[in-house]
Amino acid sequence: MNPEFVDTLVVKNESKIIFLIMDGLGGLPLGEKDQTELESARTPNLDALAKKSVCGLLDPIGYGITPGSGPAHFALFGYDPIQNSIGRGILEAAGIDFPMTDRDLLIRINFATIDGDGRVTDRRAGRIDNETNKRICRKLQEKIKRISGVEIIFEPVKEHRALLALRGDGLREEILETDPQKTGIAPFRPKALIPEAEGTAALLQKLIDQAAKILSDEEKANMMLLRGYSRYRRYPSLQQRFGLNALAIAGYPMYRGIARLLGMVVGPQPSSLREEFDALRDHYGQYDFFFLHIKPTDSRGEDGNFDAKVAVIEEVDKLVPLVLELNPDVLVVTGDHSTPAALASHSWHTLPVLLSSATCRPDRVERFGERDCIAGGLGRMPMVHLMGLALAHARRLEKFGA
Amino acid sequence: MNPEFVDTLVVKNESKIIFLIMDGLGGLPLGEKDQTELESARTPNLDALAKKSVCGLLDPIGYGITPGSGPAHFALFGYDPIQNSIGRGILEAAGIDFPMTDRDLLIRINFATIDGDGRVTDRRAGRIDNETNKRICRKLQEKIKRISGVEIIFEPVKEHRALLALRGDGLREEILETDPQKTGIAPFRPKALIPEAEGTAALLQKLIDQAAKILSDEEKANMMLLRGYSRYRRYPSLQQRFGLNALAIAGYPMYRGIARLLGMVVGPQPSSLREEFDALRDHYGQYDFFFLHIKPTDSRGEDGNFDAKVAVIEEVDKLVPLVLELNPDVLVVTGDHSTPAALASHSWHTLPVLLSSATCRPDRVERFGERDCIAGGLGRMPMVHLMGLALAHARRLEKFGA
Repeated sequence: MNPEFVDTLVVKNESKIIFLIMDGLGGLPLGEKDQTELESARTPNLDALAKKSVCGLLDPIGYGITPGSGPAHFALFGYDPIQNSIGRGILEAAGIDFPMTDRDLLIRINFATIDGDGRVTDRRAGRIDNETNKRICRKLQEKIKRISGVEIIFEPVKEHRALLALRGDGLREEILETDPQKTGIAPFRPKALIPEAEGTAALLQKLIDQAAKILSDEEKANMMLLRGYSRYRRYPSLQQRFGLNALAIAGYPMYRGIARLLGMVVGPQPSSLREEFDALRDHYGQYDFFFLHIKPTDSRGEDGNFDAKVAVIEEVDKLVPLVLELNPDVLVVTGDHSTPAALASHSWHTLPVLLSSATCRPDRVERFGERDCIAGGLGRMPMVHLMGLALAHARRLEKFGA
Repeated sequence: MNPEFVDTLVVKNESKIIFLIMDGLGGLPLGEKDQTELESARTPNLDALAKKSVCGLLDPIGYGITPGSGPAHFALFGYDPIQNSIGRGILEAAGIDFPMTDRDLLIRINFATIDGDGRVTDRRAGRIDNETNKRICRKLQEKIKRISGVEIIFEPVKEHRALLALRGDGLREEILETDPQKTGIAPFRPKALIPEAEGTAALLQKLIDQAAKILSDEEKANMMLLRGYSRYRRYPSLQQRFGLNALAIAGYPMYRGIARLLGMVVGPQPSSLREEFDALRDHYGQYDFFFLHIKPTDSRGEDGNFDAKVAVIEEVDKLVPLVLELNPDVLVVTGDHSTPAALASHSWHTLPVLLSSATCRPDRVERFGERDCIAGGLGRMPMVHLMGLALAHARRLEKFGA
């Protein structure tokens, strides 16, 4: 079934749906431990919830596919992650609320350090601070405003990361990324991958050459590497597709950006997990779909820190009663993909999900964990269909056919 | 895998396949009960069968989709239910064995009551009896035979329901239904939804105006509401697709109609469940595929009557030995969708299935119920592939490739 089929059946009602998303939730046993991070964590609230929910395992993209955050979240919200493949550039732009236009090519800049021979010595320019980043972007912007009739915009993001926007006609994204992904060699040249991209590639080469001159007196950030070329693209919103008036509560720019791309209202930036849950309560009356994004599960997984990831899960578990007090019609608890500390990276493994609702058919799962969820009533399912399932349990889909 | 892929592998043999279909079989716990209708029912015969069968859970259409009877049965017989989306009009026509032609537009009539201001006061005209329905259809047919060169045919169905067939060239189905779905407002006008349907829409408006005059002296059925416009469409039969000589045993018009649409022979109308099982035995030598349709499981579910649905399941269980005596090569027991008494309607939940055959690989399921079937060897699977699986177990599919 095409995930957009549910769109044809949508009806509106007063129900409320909450997606509590622990980024990178799925895990693996590490070392002598026989349990994953979630299985190791003491989670009495999630376990009690799992007991009366229907559980299962989700494939974010497909068998064996390790998702980036963009595709994983697209799947989570019911957007085919392959059809709606999203570039890093557009994600960066969305994350800083950059006002994109239909003529934009969005590119992520990593400021980097090169040596006298032009070889990259640090792909992150020693993680320069935000102030330096801002100063450098200003410096570039003052000297580069337009190349070959195309408007050039620099916007700082965070640390060594910035956004480069090219605004003009006929720009293409099929160009080799210049970040060589390792040190000791020179940045790649922005080669066109198809003939139609030759013009844009030539423009980028000019831009890189100019920027290199301007940055040559910088101690650390004396080069820029380009990644994630992406043409701006308009997506149908959650309101348009599902009739949902959606609020995103997320601290990290990328997730705020994704939410914005899909037409969600993005709440004020929280500074702690507790603040996220408080924001949910404070805005509960005004929306009917809530995306609560918990980042540190993923960050600690990426760090390879098993115990720290366990601690984050336990912290979230303690906050779960704040969600239950709201008595939502549908509560989904899951992640966007697995980030096992054992791998210190995103992975292709399925991830556990629970769906709690008055209309869910309970199964025999008594604990919220990977192994328990194998026996769940949802079975193993593609994540892209989770939104449809949530809508069904919220009675927001009408019958198909007579 | 496209469900039509199996068609390319079909071979014929002497095997017999029985589909024992309890309509709306899947359920939910209700109130304080912790079990579904099927789990609550005492079903020693089905449990013994499940023990030596392979079990699983079926998605009739897709995740979260609540199916109407038409799409659900199409999936059951291996026809993609979305590609073969079927209108209510054609189902009604099929259900009364109306001889359709390629030039027909089939429409369901609901006779209704309107007040002096033209507002609908009863969408079912007080559920007039069948005799009144026949009289009214005769009265309309005597005065309306042809409009703008298109032949007009009225056929009574049951109570307040009738069939309207338009026979002519270039008729379109993209027209707004006139049933407003609630009382207190006037019927909608049959507006064309695309420019190509303007002619048909104008014709229908004339027809409605004429019918309103003719019916104006009726006490209850003084208006007709139109729904489910559908152009006749020819489907490949079970014989053409799977080489199956199929018999349908069903009491309700819609299911008899669906069976006929797919080229099945439809047996005499049974007046009890027992008679359905007797008909199966009596005709067992003449066919190789048998569709036995049990309606009351769905009806009691729709009534919201948990205990009555349980009683129907128990009644069917007692009749199961009559099927086993025939020793079919493949026996499938399932439903077409879930109709939990808790919701008093069709629902999107998976439904349990068992497939019994000498070639099935048994699993550890010991009882026939929703929670037990989660652990079944079939896992969770799309219903549209069930027919292919039955054919395989009946050794009616050859190897794919060398």
